[in-house]
Amino acid sequence: MSATRKYHDKIDMMSLLSKLGPLHRTLANRDTDLALQIVADVLPGAVIEGFPCGSTAWSWTIPQRWELGAATIKADGETLVDAAWSPLHVINYSLPFKGIVTREELLKHIRTYPDKPHALPFSFSFYEPVWGFSMPHSWLSRFTAEFYEVEIDSRFESGNLNVLTLFIPGEFKETFVICSDICHPTQVNDSLTGVAVAVDIAKRLLASPNRKYSYLVMVVPETIGSIGYLANHPEMIARSVGGFFSEMLGTDGELVGQRTRQGTGYWDNLLEEALRISGQQYKVVNFLKSAGNDEKVLDSPGIDIPTFSLTRYPYPEYHTSDDNIDLINIDRLRDGRDVLQGVIELAEKDYIPTLNQPGPIFLSGHGLYPNWRDDSSLLPIWQSFIDVMYAIDGVHSVIELATKGQIPISHFFYWTDAFAEKGLLTKRPFVIPRKVY
Amino acid sequence: MSATRKYHDKIDMMSLLSKLGPLHRTLANRDTDLALQIVADVLPGAVIEGFPCGSTAWSWTIPQRWELGAATIKADGETLVDAAWSPLHVINYSLPFKGIVTREELLKHIRTYPDKPHALPFSFSFYEPVWGFSMPHSWLSRFTAEFYEVEIDSRFESGNLNVLTLFIPGEFKETFVICSDICHPTQVNDSLTGVAVAVDIAKRLLASPNRKYSYLVMVVPETIGSIGYLANHPEMIARSVGGFFSEMLGTDGELVGQRTRQGTGYWDNLLEEALRISGQQYKVVNFLKSAGNDEKVLDSPGIDIPTFSLTRYPYPEYHTSDDNIDLINIDRLRDGRDVLQGVIELAEKDYIPTLNQPGPIFLSGHGLYPNWRDDSSLLPIWQSFIDVMYAIDGVHSVIELATKGQIPISHFFYWTDAFAEKGLLTKRPFVIPRKVY
Amino acid sequence: MSATRKYHDKIDMMSLLSKLGPLHRTLANRDTDLALQIVADVLPGAVIEGFPCGSTAWSWTIPQRWELGAATIKADGETLVDAAWSPLHVINYSLPFKGIVTREELLKHIRTYPDKPHALPFSFSFYEPVWGFSMPHSWLSRFTAEFYEVEIDSRFESGNLNVLTLFIPGEFKETFVICSDICHPTQVNDSLTGVAVAVDIAKRLLASPNRKYSYLVMVVPETIGSIGYLANHPEMIARSVGGFFSEMLGTDGELVGQRTRQGTGYWDNLLEEALRISGQQYKVVNFLKSAGNDEKVLDSPGIDIPTFSLTRYPYPEYHTSDDNIDLINIDRLRDGRDVLQGVIELAEKDYIPTLNQPGPIFLSGHGLYPNWRDDSSLLPIWQSFIDVMYAIDGVHSVIELATKGQIPISHFFYWTDAFAEKGLLTKRPFVIPRKVY
Repeated sequence: MSATRKYHDKIDMMSLLSKLGPLHRTLANRDTDLALQIVADVLPGAVIEGFPCGSTAWSWTIPQRWELGAATIKADGETLVDAAWSPLHVINYSLPFKGIVTREELLKHIRTYPDKPHALPFSFSFYEPVWGFSMPHSWLSRFTAEFYEVEIDSRFESGNLNVLTLFIPGEFKETFVICSDICHPTQVNDSLTGVAVAVDIAKRLLASPNRKYSYLVMVVPETIGSIGYLANHPEMIARSVGGFFSEMLGTDGELVGQRTRQGTGYWDNLLEEALRISGQQYKVVNFLKSAGNDEKVLDSPGIDIPTFSLTRYPYPEYHTSDDNIDLINIDRLRDGRDVLQGVIELAEKDYIPTLNQPGPIFLSGHGLYPNWRDDSSLLPIWQSFIDVMYAIDGVHSVIELATKGQIPISHFFYWTDAFAEKGLLTKRPFVIPRKVY
Repeated sequence: MSATRKYHDKIDMMSLLSKLGPLHRTLANRDTDLALQIVADVLPGAVIEGFPCGSTAWSWTIPQRWELGAATIKADGETLVDAAWSPLHVINYSLPFKGIVTREELLKHIRTYPDKPHALPFSFSFYEPVWGFSMPHSWLSRFTAEFYEVEIDSRFESGNLNVLTLFIPGEFKETFVICSDICHPTQVNDSLTGVAVAVDIAKRLLASPNRKYSYLVMVVPETIGSIGYLANHPEMIARSVGGFFSEMLGTDGELVGQRTRQGTGYWDNLLEEALRISGQQYKVVNFLKSAGNDEKVLDSPGIDIPTFSLTRYPYPEYHTSDDNIDLINIDRLRDGRDVLQGVIELAEKDYIPTLNQPGPIFLSGHGLYPNWRDDSSLLPIWQSFIDVMYAIDGVHSVIELATKGQIPISHFFYWTDAFAEKGLLTKRPFVIPRKVY
Repeated sequence: MSATRKYHDKIDMMSLLSKLGPLHRTLANRDTDLALQIVADVLPGAVIEGFPCGSTAWSWTIPQRWELGAATIKADGETLVDAAWSPLHVINYSLPFKGIVTREELLKHIRTYPDKPHALPFSFSFYEPVWGFSMPHSWLSRFTAEFYEVEIDSRFESGNLNVLTLFIPGEFKETFVICSDICHPTQVNDSLTGVAVAVDIAKRLLASPNRKYSYLVMVVPETIGSIGYLANHPEMIARSVGGFFSEMLGTDGELVGQRTRQGTGYWDNLLEEALRISGQQYKVVNFLKSAGNDEKVLDSPGIDIPTFSLTRYPYPEYHTSDDNIDLINIDRLRDGRDVLQGVIELAEKDYIPTLNQPGPIFLSGHGLYPNWRDDSSLLPIWQSFIDVMYAIDGVHSVIELATKGQIPISHFFYWTDAFAEKGLLTKRPFVIPRKVY
C-alpha cells in the first residue's frame, strides 16, 4: 500500500496519539478538557464549547463531571488493588465508597472478563449509580480473606461537559460531518485513532483551495457529546447532508464499513467504492450491525444525517488496558485514513454530466478514440464507453450513474472528463441535498 | 391452545350451528329466510334486507326463489331416490320434471363423486337451467331397469333474495367488513362456521367501549348475496377499507390465510402476524389461490375492498352430506375465531408513533432500561430496542414499521407504548385509508 | 412454421435482395444512391433526402462520398490482388495510394481474418484515414517478393449523403420507427435482409384501412444515416415513441431480441411476447449486448426513442464476401418478419379495458361461460378468467396488464374482447406516450 500511497500525512498522527493516550479521559473531567485543548492546539479555528451538567438535551440530561482520587482494596494489611496502578481499576463514573465489606459483598462489586483472565477490563456505568472495581479475572484467586477495607474517593462535580468542533465553510452550505470520540481513559485505538484521522483530514481540507461541501469536524465524548452539541445546534443539523464516524483503525484487522441508516444511498455507494479502490481487505455491514457509536445519534430519527462508520472492529484488546499506543500500526491507520479521504475526494469531484448535444458522441471526430489496438490497457476504458455514453441522463451525478449502472467510477470520470474537455459536455455542480427519511 | 386462550366465547357457537345446520338453505327460499331470522335474533341491531328477484345488480340478475317439493326416481315399483331422505338428492335450483325416461337418459341427469363412491354430493346449477339428481356413486349399480319414473316438484317463485347485515359504528367512518355465507343446505362447516364466528366477533365488538373502525357484518347467500347488497349500498363500498371472508373453520386441517387482491398491503401483513402469533399450523396463499368465495366480490375491480379469507380448506367431507354438525370441533373453531379476532385487535390498537424529541431515547434517564442481566427473558426485548428506535419515522404506523423492518409487532408495541407512557412519544391515531387500486 | 404462417409476403423479398445485393453500397456513393432508388421504386411515397458532406449533425460531421476505381497489388509482373475481383479487397473509405513498397510495409496495410483463413473480410475505416487492402489470410503465403507495386485509385467527393424515409400517418401522432441499413458492399444478410423486411411490413401497413400509430420507415447507411436524418428532423424525434432496428434475419441461427435501453418497458414486453408466440428458437438480451446498430442512435441520450432490435447474429459468414444471396433462407427471413409484424399487430390492437360496471362479471347471465366440460380446449381459457377479471384496473392496457400479471396476452384479449362485445366493457384507445428517460 505505501508504495502507491495517495495521501501524505498532514500531521504526525503517532505523536498526537502519544500525547492524548495516557490521559484519563471520560465523559467530562479535567483530563478530557486537557485532551480537547491538545487537539485544539493543532487545529486552528477549532472551538471548545461546554454544556452545563444537569441541563437537558432532547430526552437526555447532561451528566455531572467525575473525578477519581485514591481508590484501593486492602486485606490483612496488603493492598490488593490500587487505582494509582491504572484508572481502569475503578468502574468509570463509580459512586464513592468507604467501608469494610465481606468477601461475598465485595465480589458483587468486581467486574472481570472471565474469558480474558489476564486483561484489565474497561468498565463503566455512566447512568446506573453503582460503585465497584475492575481487574483481571486471574486476580480473584488472591481474594481469600473474609473481610476487606474498601475506599473509592470519587467526586461528582458541577460544571460543563465539553466538546470540540471545527467548522470549515465550503462553496455550498451542505455540510459533511466528520465525527470522532475523545473518551475511553488510557485507551488509544478506541477511540483516539479516530481523532488523529479526523485532524489529519481536517488539515487537508483547510489546505484545499476550493471545497464544494462545508465540513463539521467533531471531537466529543461518546454519545452524550454529540447529543449535547446537536441539541444546541439545530442549524447544523439543518445543513448536514452526510457524515462518518471513525475509530479503531490502527490494528491489523480488516476494515469494516457500516452503512448509513438508509442503507442504499449516496454515501453508502461512495463508501463501498472507496473501499473497493483501496485494494484493502474489507467488509460492509448494515447500520447498527457493527460497533455502535455516535452514528446512532447523527443518524437517529429527527436528526437524519446519513452517517456511515469505518473501523477495524473487533480486535482482541478492545476495552482493556492492553489498548494502548504499542498496539498502533501507523500504516494501518494511514490505510484507514486513505479510505475516508477517498470518500471525501470522490464526493468533492462529483458532478452532473450534461451532454451539450443529443446522440452518441463522435469519438474519432473529436480525437477521443482510445487506441486500444496499440495500447491494450485502454481496452477496458474503450469497452466502458457505450455503458457510460448511454447512462448519462442530465439528471444524476457521475457517482449516482456509475453506481446504478455498475460501471467503475474511474471509467465514468475518464469519459465525462474527456467529453467536457472537448466542449461536448457540461459539468453541472452537484451536492447531495438534505433529505429527511 | 385452550390453556392460553385469549378470547372467551360471546355466544354458544355450537348451539347456533345446531339450529341453523338442518335447514335447507340456498340462495333464496323459506329456510334461508328462517336461518337469517335465527341469526338476527341473537344479534341486536341486525337488519334483514331483500332485493327483488329479476332486478339488476351490476352485471348480474337476482335469481328467482327456489322451493323443493317431492322428488323421486322409481323403477319397477321401487323408490330408488327420494328428496325426503335429503334435499341434496336434487340438484340445487333444478328445473321441475315429470316423466318416464330411459336408463341412458336418466344417467345424464345424475351427478356423483366417482372418487368418493359413498358420499352424497352437494350439486347445484344456479344459472344453467338443468334438471337432475345427486347420489352416492355406489348407488348407480341399483339402476338396472330399462325405464324410470322421475318426478321433481320444484318451483321458481318471485319475491326477494334476502341478506342480513349489522352496521357497528366506530370513531372513524373507515369500515371493516366481516363477511360470511348462509347457504349450502344441511351443511355446517361450509359455510355456517363462518356465520358463528362472525356473530361471536360482532358481539365482542358491540361490547367494546371504544372502537376505532366501523364494522359491517354480512351474512349472505354466497356471491349473489354480497353482489345484491353492495350494488344497492354504494355508500358502504365508499367507506370500506378492508375485510375478511371466513368459513370452514371447524375441522382439523391447517389454517389457510388467503391474501387480498393487492397481496402485500396492510391486511395481508396483519393476517400473517395474527397467524404467526397464534402458534397454530397455517399457510398463506395468494388471492384466488384457495377456495373462492365472497372475497371475489368485495375485492373485485370497482369495489376494491381489500379482503383476505381464512378457512381450513380443503377437508374430505367438503360439498357432501357428511359435512354436518358432527364434524365440528369447537376448539378448532375457536382457534380460527381467535386469529380473526387477533387481526381486529391489532388493527384497533395500531397507531402512528411520533417522537416528542429528536435523537435516540435516553433509556436509563427515564427508567426504561430493561434489566436483562437479572431477567434474561428481557434480552430479546432489549435487543429489539435499536431496531424499533431507528425505525420510527412519524409517518407510518407501528404495524407498517414492524412489517417493513421485520421486527416482532409485540416488541414494537412494547417500546412505543413505554415511550408514550413516559411522555417521550405521541400516539397519533391511525386507520388505514380507502385506496382504489 | 410455414403451415401456420400468419402473414403473406407483400413483396418478393428475394427479388429485391437480388437486385440490391451486388451493388457496392457504402455510406455515400453512386451505388448507394442507386440502391435507395431501387427501394423507392417499390415503396410509393418514399422520399430520398440528402445531407451535405461536411455539414454538422450533433457531435458528428457528415463524411465525404467515396468512389473506388482500380486498385491492385502487383509483384514480379503478377497481379496478386485486384479490386475488380471484389470491392471488398480495398478497405472501405481507404485513402488513395500509388507507389512501390517493401513487403514489410505492405503487410501493415493488409487486413485478414487469421481464424477464417479462406474468407475475404469486409474491412472499413470511415473516420481514421488509412490506405489498405483486405484478403483471405491464406493468400499471405503468396507474398514472397521483396517489393510490390501498389495502386488504389479511390476518390473522396463532395455532395450529399442520402437516406430514404417513408412516413405513414396514423390516427395518432405517436410514431413507431422501422429502421434498416443499406450499406455493407455486396453483402446481403447484413444488412439488406432488414431492408426487405422493412419494405414488406411498410406495404402491409400502407394497405391497412386503419392504423393507430403513425410509422416512420428508415433505410439509411449505418449510424451516420440515422444521425444525419434525426439531427435534421427534430419534429420526428418529438413524436417517436418506439421503434426497432432489424437485419441479419435470413440465416438459420436463433432469433436474438435485444431490449431497448430502458429494458423493461412496453416494447420490451411486446418483443418477448411476439417471440414467445412465434414458436421459434430465440433469446433476449439487454441493450448493447448484441450486434450494435442504429438503435444506438435512436435510443441514445437526448433522442430517447425506445428501440429494440431483432437479428440472428452471429453467423459464420458475418462481414465476409460469403455473406451473399446464396446464404438467404426465405423461410427464416419470413419467420423474422412475422415476429416484427406480430409486435406491430399487438401494439395496434392494444387498448385500455374499462369495465362498464363494478364487480365480477356474471358469465352465465351473458352467455359467456366457456363450456370446458364439453370442449376441454376451453379449460385454459376458463382458468384464466379470474386472473383477467381481477387484473382489469381501467388504467393500464391489455398488454401492460397481461405482462404484469403473467397472463397470456391471447387469453387476456379473449375475455376483454368478449366483455366488450356484450357491452360490459369499453375499449379505451391506447398508444404508448413519449417518455424521455
